Amino acid sequence: VSRVLRLSELADEAGVSLATVKYYQREGLLPAARKVGERRAEYDERHLRRLRLLRVMRDVGGVPVERLRSLVEAVEDEQASPHEMFGVACDALNSPFVDVGPEHAAWREIGDDLIAQSGWDRLRADAPDRDHLAALLEVVSGLSIPGDPESALAYFGLVDQLARFEIESLVDTGEQDRGSLLERMVVGQVVFGQMLLVLRRIAEEHHSALRFA
Amino acid sequence: VSRVLRLSELADEAGVSLATVKYYQREGLLPAARKVGERRAEYDERHLRRLRLLRVMRDVGGVPVERLRSLVEAVEDEQASPHEMFGVACDALNSPFVDVGPEHAAWREIGDDLIAQSGWDRLRADAPDRDHLAALLEVVSGLSIPGDPESALAYFGLVDQLARFEIESLVDTGEQDRGSLLERMVVGQVVFGQMLLVLRRIAEEHHSALRFA
Repeated sequence: VSRVLRLSELADEAGVSLATVKYYQREGLLPAARKVGERRAEYDERHLRRLRLLRVMRDVGGVPVERLRSLVEAVEDEQASPHEMFGVACDALNSPFVDVGPEHAAWREIGDDLIAQSGWDRLRADAPDRDHLAALLEVVSGLSIPGDPESALAYFGLVDQLARFEIESLVDTGEQDRGSLLERMVVGQVVFGQMLLVLRRIAEEHHSALRFA
Repeated sequence: VSRVLRLSELADEAGVSLATVKYYQREGLLPAARKVGERRAEYDERHLRRLRLLRVMRDVGGVPVERLRSLVEAVEDEQASPHEMFGVACDALNSPFVDVGPEHAAWREIGDDLIAQSGWDRLRADAPDRDHLAALLEVVSGLSIPGDPESALAYFGLVDQLARFEIESLVDTGEQDRGSLLERMVVGQVVFGQMLLVLRRIAEEHHSALRFA
């Protein structure tokens, strides 16, 4: 029951230019088209879904093409469980911040301890975000921002609620198709990540007005 | 009681190169040094604090130099209240995503309505984040991610708690110095923004494992 699309219809519906579709094809980011005769290529919903995914990654996530490739490989790896796939996607979407400071080992221990106390015991032991967190804790410690382990844990607890909310809303769709679940996870990481930062700025402007204006 | 620093000590303590200090000076991002005789320039804690701020913006926030300037202008504007300053900083730190879709006016209305229902009535009527939010809502609507206004409001409520938590921890320092409060606000926007995204990925990997593995 899949719709058949021509190249121009595909580009149009996905909201990208013909040149962009051809570029993604050359880069191996799109599944091959079905060739019909010499001069005609047919596309379907899978191509459309992939193009929309790539467009969101590029426009909203600012993900460079090299990292688009590792995302696509993860989406296409049929062996990976949804959870493994999620880990791969998280790593691919990681910001390139790896400015490791002189006290990194000590902060890594503190970070791992906060993660354990937050109950996040299913995080991979080698997840790069453990080093991310340690590096950020070290940056914060160099600034005149107060903080104690207890208030850190309260903050982590709020993030835990947000994350559970997002994961549940990804699952709770009735849709069982594996490919589309994985794509939703990836898009969720990017779009909801942006959404979270925008909402946070909005809420902080409001609370800053209440507090300071 | 302010310490006096030479150029090399200043660079060393701030963790940047001499070339970087000189570049920021040329760009007008650092206050002028105190000239002592022909060949010696003296710096103090203000220069150190500013340099640390600029370094965090660049390394953690990925803020380009043009936007560093608007941040510095906001920090140095003695007329601005802390709250006005916060708005300027938020706008300067805004991601450049302004991909406005064909249904923008309708989504803007929906977004403004969600903001009002979340009680964020102190947000400026002309805050650019209103358009950001509308654009993101439009992106989400084009994907196969479910969502209804009620669950959106629950999510917004969690972000509200996070934001209140952050603003209170900025205030609750006993330190009354206006300059350092403003700088903490700006740094908080960047560093805690990164921290939030890292923690969210960590928590989502954990919940994804519980749900899918």
